[in-house]
Amino acid sequence: MVNKSNIQEAELALEAGAVEFEPETPDVYGDAHPKDLLRKIPEEHDVLKELSNKHIATAAQFEKQTLLQLFRLSAKYESNPDRFSTPLKGKIMISAFYEPSTRTRLSFESAWHRLGGDIMSITDRSTTGIAKGESLYDIGEMFNNYGDCVVLRDNDENSVVEMMESLRIPIINAGNGTDEHPTQALADVYTILKWRPEIMMGDSQGIKICIVGVPSKMRTIRSLLTLLSRFADAIAEVVIIHDGQTEELFSPGQKEKLEEDGLKIHTKTMLSDCLHEMDVIYINTISWVDDDIETIGEGFKLNASSPLKKGAIILHPLARGDELDTSLDETPHNWYFAQARGAVFIRMALLTCITRRTDRVMDVL
Amino acid sequence: MVNKSNIQEAELALEAGAVEFEPETPDVYGDAHPKDLLRKIPEEHDVLKELSNKHIATAAQFEKQTLLQLFRLSAKYESNPDRFSTPLKGKIMISAFYEPSTRTRLSFESAWHRLGGDIMSITDRSTTGIAKGESLYDIGEMFNNYGDCVVLRDNDENSVVEMMESLRIPIINAGNGTDEHPTQALADVYTILKWRPEIMMGDSQGIKICIVGVPSKMRTIRSLLTLLSRFADAIAEVVIIHDGQTEELFSPGQKEKLEEDGLKIHTKTMLSDCLHEMDVIYINTISWVDDDIETIGEGFKLNASSPLKKGAIILHPLARGDELDTSLDETPHNWYFAQARGAVFIRMALLTCITRRTDRVMDVL
Amino acid sequence: MVNKSNIQEAELALEAGAVEFEPETPDVYGDAHPKDLLRKIPEEHDVLKELSNKHIATAAQFEKQTLLQLFRLSAKYESNPDRFSTPLKGKIMISAFYEPSTRTRLSFESAWHRLGGDIMSITDRSTTGIAKGESLYDIGEMFNNYGDCVVLRDNDENSVVEMMESLRIPIINAGNGTDEHPTQALADVYTILKWRPEIMMGDSQGIKICIVGVPSKMRTIRSLLTLLSRFADAIAEVVIIHDGQTEELFSPGQKEKLEEDGLKIHTKTMLSDCLHEMDVIYINTISWVDDDIETIGEGFKLNASSPLKKGAIILHPLARGDELDTSLDETPHNWYFAQARGAVFIRMALLTCITRRTDRVMDVL
Repeated sequence: MVNKSNIQEAELALEAGAVEFEPETPDVYGDAHPKDLLRKIPEEHDVLKELSNKHIATAAQFEKQTLLQLFRLSAKYESNPDRFSTPLKGKIMISAFYEPSTRTRLSFESAWHRLGGDIMSITDRSTTGIAKGESLYDIGEMFNNYGDCVVLRDNDENSVVEMMESLRIPIINAGNGTDEHPTQALADVYTILKWRPEIMMGDSQGIKICIVGVPSKMRTIRSLLTLLSRFADAIAEVVIIHDGQTEELFSPGQKEKLEEDGLKIHTKTMLSDCLHEMDVIYINTISWVDDDIETIGEGFKLNASSPLKKGAIILHPLARGDELDTSLDETPHNWYFAQARGAVFIRMALLTCITRRTDRVMDVL
Repeated sequence: MVNKSNIQEAELALEAGAVEFEPETPDVYGDAHPKDLLRKIPEEHDVLKELSNKHIATAAQFEKQTLLQLFRLSAKYESNPDRFSTPLKGKIMISAFYEPSTRTRLSFESAWHRLGGDIMSITDRSTTGIAKGESLYDIGEMFNNYGDCVVLRDNDENSVVEMMESLRIPIINAGNGTDEHPTQALADVYTILKWRPEIMMGDSQGIKICIVGVPSKMRTIRSLLTLLSRFADAIAEVVIIHDGQTEELFSPGQKEKLEEDGLKIHTKTMLSDCLHEMDVIYINTISWVDDDIETIGEGFKLNASSPLKKGAIILHPLARGDELDTSLDETPHNWYFAQARGAVFIRMALLTCITRRTDRVMDVL
Repeated sequence: MVNKSNIQEAELALEAGAVEFEPETPDVYGDAHPKDLLRKIPEEHDVLKELSNKHIATAAQFEKQTLLQLFRLSAKYESNPDRFSTPLKGKIMISAFYEPSTRTRLSFESAWHRLGGDIMSITDRSTTGIAKGESLYDIGEMFNNYGDCVVLRDNDENSVVEMMESLRIPIINAGNGTDEHPTQALADVYTILKWRPEIMMGDSQGIKICIVGVPSKMRTIRSLLTLLSRFADAIAEVVIIHDGQTEELFSPGQKEKLEEDGLKIHTKTMLSDCLHEMDVIYINTISWVDDDIETIGEGFKLNASSPLKKGAIILHPLARGDELDTSLDETPHNWYFAQARGAVFIRMALLTCITRRTDRVMDVL
């Protein structure tokens, strides 16, 4: 912890040259080989064009083929981060984050800026017509006149569906209550595919994925499970680790649907039972319930001493608390920083599709 | 009202393809024939150049000739929404909304972005020097260094005039207390002229306009009446419908000035008395008094069963409450959505003039 | 003070043409002859390139040579305000102002926009991961993915040093608690050099500088004294005027270091004792302590009757209170408005350097 005398020491150090920084990303942060994915997935523009008049509301709307094309475009962007600076030129995003967030908002806004677009932000619900009793329908009709795309995060999980009634521009659900967070799941699976591109082909061995959290209450997990089910033939099992406190681990019909789509799901309460067998460990301790933070699963923590399988990767949507110790940051298990980095590129890909600007970035038209 | 089981149904629907949306604007929303206005008004650049060193503080500063040229430029923008993307390149707007707003702020910011400019937003008065006791004069002097244009909305109706003392860049009054809202009035009259371009010529028959609200207390109405007086020769009468609760319907001298300028004004308390005769019905129930919403005229509501004249149009600056029922949205009377859409283009026109960039968009220099 | 009947008078005046404004800056505002500096300092690109992998945390990191090159680039920008509109094209600034500010934030954002860059703003600490207990280290790692540069102002004076631990993009300290405000000091000294370019050469006569305030408690003064020490050979004396209320005028070692670097420092409690001898008077009454404004030195005020030396200049970082009377605004002593204006150009220069874009603006590569 830095204190006042440390500040003076730091200042002396600063004078001595310690204001220098290293701009290169350390290798240990899972460089995530986007080029591999780029080579392994053939480009199919028509599949992406199907997104051109779609809202992005739920992970359930993505089939495997669409995911692969989105990942391919993300990989193209990530491999050439400075090349594509104008696809969204002239396009305006309405960035509406009624539920507090910096990480997701900056991720979207960065993606939009990188592609040359303009942004208008609403970060305070109380300044909007909602505070004056305006209907979400009318707000959608208003947005139609002002922008080309809406990105919405709201505690109220009905907002996005209600606005879809009047919107004639696409809206992306950036997290609605405890319901869904589709773009986070896209980023998560993009990361997994960069780590093991063979998953696309249906690996006979099958990877083992462990998810720490409660699927009925965490939107990141709900969306993630849905997308994982598209690659069920490459997944040996999904183990849900929970703390035994929550009555209903799954929403009505949630587990059945996932199993119907091919996932083999087990539930446990002891992470130590299976950790050493897992290839991918996904942790996510914080759950938003209304405007409070509800902490679930405080007993589940990972650190550099945890008995992780060699080559296993850890994912976490961040922000993190005690559940993911910083001692893991410099180990090869750290793919959570790569996950955050890739999230900008997957959003760039998605935004390019829904604004109908893919013709500006395809190899072949 | 959407509830949790509806969400799951909605999700199933989403999976089935209900994330699709229709990007085309329905015909019924008063397409507002901007091309007609474009043809009927000859371009006169000199008139627009007179705005180049003017603040936009009050509707009273606009004569008929200036209005027609602004409407012509708005119509040019509305007819060619993608053509003019660079007139404001290199220009910075300071968007200062001390009084909560999303609609007006996004309307201005969208207009500025569409023309290629950059924006800096201040949405929280407490972060400004005002909170530190800084004078508005000093804040104006500060703004001179940072931007090319200021757009200000403030509960305090004196702010805009005080800042004009030191500003050397133009400021637009985007609503000051209960005083004025000139650009809203510009949008309102632009809509009326798109509906009946003949008004410009001085229609011998004359249209009948009904305004529901209190001119002394509502800035949108104050500004609107002033602009309507420029077209008094085409207006048979203006009927003010109020609820009989407010003592002084007009500010001192307000009614006299309007009548001197040619408007024939009547007041009534029963909307039903005259509704069937009206060509334009303008409603606006909410009035901002300090930081509270004061609701006036709750007894005056319109819906699809109201005895409207065939071809009559309804205007409302929005956000709306119960006074304007959604049953009217799909009828030909709905020109309030076209009014909101046109507001972006009229602001584009005004902003182009005050930043001295009209030479980039005129047909003939 | 404007009141309601004045508003109506103002409106009549507005109708009569009083919405006009004068866009030209008055001569009396210290035009600050940037061209002189431009001619007197030879360009040395290598010196600026040394900033390309540096954070900007403390005034102490700037040597005289670097200062001169930064001032030269600022002077180039100030002399040609419209010429350089694209050096930061494609670059994203993360503008994080956790401590309320409008002046400094708009100054930075204006500088960045003028050079063609894009901006993402965080103005509410409660929306960030900090509110969720996220470490500053993790926030720095997040920022690495989203932008090219961070500008941070925080009550917590440790934030900038803590974030430097993980940042791989440059961060500028825009004011941390009572510690430092390096870019304000750069703007202050830039102004002094525009006033007397000879200072660079080491004037044999030496100017006398008077600073009203407490160096141990005011970040603007701490940073300013450090930069002034780089020009100690041209400064006859620095007189600190304080109100005798504060126990420790200087932080431990602060005065000794400055004297070691050549400044001759005296302290007094009576401004009137020496005012008539001073060439530069720097006042700054407000000091931020945590989230409250602590007002220091209320007894020290300047106005047009103060016995100022002919040709003396007054500097104030603004916002001002009673300590700097408006009667001085129209006098040749007013260099505080020029100081604010120049602050945008010095920030443009610094931002160009830390984003490694100087090659786009040098005369010779």
